[in-house]
Amino acid sequence: VSRPPDWFSLAVQFGVWPLPQTFTSSIERSPLSPEAFYFEYGSQSAAQQGCSVLDAAFTRYFPLIFPDYTGNGVLRFYTCYQPATVCCTVGVTLLTAALIDCLLYIIHLLLTGLETFSQLVYQDDFGAHFYHYFVNKTEIVDFPRFQFRGILLDTSRHYLPVKTILQTLDAMAYSKFNVFHWHIVDDPSFPYQSRTYPDLSSKGAFHPMTHIYTQSDVRRVISHARLWGIRVLPEFDSPGHTASWGKGQSDLLTPCYRGSSLSGTFGPVNPVLPSTYQFMARLFKEVSSVFPDSHIHLGGDEVNFSCWSSNPDIRAFMKKMGFGVDFTKLEAFYMENIVNITSALNKTAIVWQDVFDYHELIPKDTVLHIWKGTPASYQAELSRMTKAGMKVLLAAPWYINHISYGQDWHQYYNVQPLDFPGTEEQKKLVIGGEVCMWGEYVDATNLTPRLWPRASAAAERLWSDEKQTSSADKAFPRFQDLRCKLVRRGIRAEPLYVGHCKHEYQGV
Amino acid sequence: VSRPPDWFSLAVQFGVWPLPQTFTSSIERSPLSPEAFYFEYGSQSAAQQGCSVLDAAFTRYFPLIFPDYTGNGVLRFYTCYQPATVCCTVGVTLLTAALIDCLLYIIHLLLTGLETFSQLVYQDDFGAHFYHYFVNKTEIVDFPRFQFRGILLDTSRHYLPVKTILQTLDAMAYSKFNVFHWHIVDDPSFPYQSRTYPDLSSKGAFHPMTHIYTQSDVRRVISHARLWGIRVLPEFDSPGHTASWGKGQSDLLTPCYRGSSLSGTFGPVNPVLPSTYQFMARLFKEVSSVFPDSHIHLGGDEVNFSCWSSNPDIRAFMKKMGFGVDFTKLEAFYMENIVNITSALNKTAIVWQDVFDYHELIPKDTVLHIWKGTPASYQAELSRMTKAGMKVLLAAPWYINHISYGQDWHQYYNVQPLDFPGTEEQKKLVIGGEVCMWGEYVDATNLTPRLWPRASAAAERLWSDEKQTSSADKAFPRFQDLRCKLVRRGIRAEPLYVGHCKHEYQGV
Repeated sequence: VSRPPDWFSLAVQFGVWPLPQTFTSSIERSPLSPEAFYFEYGSQSAAQQGCSVLDAAFTRYFPLIFPDYTGNGVLRFYTCYQPATVCCTVGVTLLTAALIDCLLYIIHLLLTGLETFSQLVYQDDFGAHFYHYFVNKTEIVDFPRFQFRGILLDTSRHYLPVKTILQTLDAMAYSKFNVFHWHIVDDPSFPYQSRTYPDLSSKGAFHPMTHIYTQSDVRRVISHARLWGIRVLPEFDSPGHTASWGKGQSDLLTPCYRGSSLSGTFGPVNPVLPSTYQFMARLFKEVSSVFPDSHIHLGGDEVNFSCWSSNPDIRAFMKKMGFGVDFTKLEAFYMENIVNITSALNKTAIVWQDVFDYHELIPKDTVLHIWKGTPASYQAELSRMTKAGMKVLLAAPWYINHISYGQDWHQYYNVQPLDFPGTEEQKKLVIGGEVCMWGEYVDATNLTPRLWPRASAAAERLWSDEKQTSSADKAFPRFQDLRCKLVRRGIRAEPLYVGHCKHEYQGV
Repeated sequence: VSRPPDWFSLAVQFGVWPLPQTFTSSIERSPLSPEAFYFEYGSQSAAQQGCSVLDAAFTRYFPLIFPDYTGNGVLRFYTCYQPATVCCTVGVTLLTAALIDCLLYIIHLLLTGLETFSQLVYQDDFGAHFYHYFVNKTEIVDFPRFQFRGILLDTSRHYLPVKTILQTLDAMAYSKFNVFHWHIVDDPSFPYQSRTYPDLSSKGAFHPMTHIYTQSDVRRVISHARLWGIRVLPEFDSPGHTASWGKGQSDLLTPCYRGSSLSGTFGPVNPVLPSTYQFMARLFKEVSSVFPDSHIHLGGDEVNFSCWSSNPDIRAFMKKMGFGVDFTKLEAFYMENIVNITSALNKTAIVWQDVFDYHELIPKDTVLHIWKGTPASYQAELSRMTKAGMKVLLAAPWYINHISYGQDWHQYYNVQPLDFPGTEEQKKLVIGGEVCMWGEYVDATNLTPRLWPRASAAAERLWSDEKQTSSADKAFPRFQDLRCKLVRRGIRAEPLYVGHCKHEYQGV
């Protein structure tokens, strides 16, 4: 039984998500043969065979382009160097050369270009011809709107197995996300196995053997991410959110008092002891070498002052420093020390927005991460921070762990990150955005359908031109098409509404 | 590395969900050896080797009781017949015989008794001894509060692969659900492949080959369910919710008019044509033989009268019948005919509550299914229906497809199905309840984490004594334990809150 393609399937089969900056397609189509298709480095290309990232990408994308094909394709790729661009003739076969002339990408966007190309190839609906693949004549010029397009995973509130993280990286690449913000530790558990301080995980993880990330696990995540063109940004949040740290490192946290005696509980990191900074310096030295990214996330959010204020040593220190009873000054003092530690390690700091509120001496290259509030309030924050010349990163509208019934992706799609009062210069300080999947109610059982394709709505906002992608209704069929493509690639992306995919998810 | 069991793990390792009617456990525990453990039919037992349901259950439960064990256990089971009960000595080994004396169950509850027993067995925390299993001395008397404990899956709004349905049946048994309400067809698609009317699926399914349930698929679902002690209740909802039926059966649906001419669209089933009832009689004859359950669900909800009222033939019929302009009378006329058809096939009808509102001649054995409203309104409906002597089934508070952020299982747990004005006799007419997973936003990608363990909150309400299970907070640790047991059995049950399971979900 076969069905001719109807208008709808014609319309969606050319869909690319996120939408390229310029995209012209025609109904003129050409078959692609997996037997004849190859990737080839151009003779004048700056990159050549042996470039591991590209070689790996070609290998990876072959089955994504030809999903049912089980034979061996020829893996060659042709690029011809032009200043700052690569002219890619993808799949130079006799049949297709005439049609697919040139896809232009900025050189470092070659990986995302491969993703785009893979989304352009489709199979026809005729079941008898399994190996019939097609691509329509298409011209694309593409580049991302924002340089930072992140996803935060929280591996402290629930432990996520490494393969869950790796699969999330794959799916990130499919929507052109390029930063994995690894919120690796927090109050509930400390799964990072430190070389320098092994007790942090052996005493602070949910389980010292089965619920940790070894050095080898971390390397695996970083190297997998690298092959997809994804940076790994580690977060070691302090001085709050550190309850689990205290289990493996005595004297790190502030002992809380009830009246004049110890209550037995602990508060944020103790900011008045020199040993605290010695510990942090050694820990961040290790972290800086383990995670090669130029940036490091230092947290700094939601510091509760009640324990600090109960502690007589802290109060004495406040008095000595002339902070009065303003604990925000103590927090600023602490964060300044931590930022100095990581600056000395040649890392640029990213901190949650709380830090900016209290801190005047924060280095100008620090990135402020906005997580609080409604559009009205985060727009004011964007305005204020960029006016101070600070770089900012927007997460507030993309707390995707929050769920509600129905098509809630509209709210992620409709965000306008640059819609705040400010100059052109200020707007340029918005380096990107981040989808946050906090882990209170999320682990490996439900992460994927909760993340995909909802996060991809934000991906289009962060990649594409806002004017061309201003209507969620118009985007809907293309978004449905993306979700079916994700399912086709084995990602349990949940449905957007009533309907079906040609290839449904077949796992259980 | 090993950890001694702490108070918490001691408390939860004896957890059974749903809570048995009487449950007395002691800290006295006995090891169980998978090498020595066996199930055995008692010499005086009514059931003997060759009873396929029990034989299959013993085979199935062995690995559930000993999850890490890879050897071959001895599968025997001992039951000693007593009037109306089975005295089960489970696992008569030299070591355990002294401790586990007798678990009492009503005879048809042997399967649920096996489930209970499987939940009582636990492994210690010492990693070195993989095959150390224990069971504490426990006395249980158990029976369900309600006879009908159902889950509705909707395979029309999205197609669910057969193996997704089979896995859901497994998970249902783990929470002692005993009815799979298969809402198999609806407006968007007709995946049931009828022997009598093959066009219904070849033209009305999302895809005629890949998105259908063949006769063999249906048999597989029914036989799998039977082995778990689960009934399969099919629903063929009419006269509304039938858009997909019209694609493969011309003249079945009502042609709608715009003014005096056909609009080209169709409404509910056409209730004025004799051919409609001939079609329904043949279809339901087939359905009645394919689905062996004593009950059949006929739908009858949400009939939109606008198309009927636009059609001159319908209006003429109304006039002839003396219905005036009261289309509820036409709906009642239609439903009465359908109920008569299925009555003649020896099936008891279940209908959605809408039907009761319009229908006085409904047979007294028909079961009314409450799906609308807030607690205040469904309580009034329960009162009114049972006062009329009708049996009722409660679904309204358990529309589990609706999601919200946080621990929303509390609302399912806190339902009090018998809290309505009425006599004891009226209360007895509430035969049970049903968790409904409507399919607008659900398919195989997200069904399982959305269903489990949230549905299990309702399972406890339907099985257990309400007084003993009145506090969601008190139930929480036991509920968390259940969720980890589900994960341990390969069910992607989502987390309830921050924390971990000893064995996390390992798939992707």
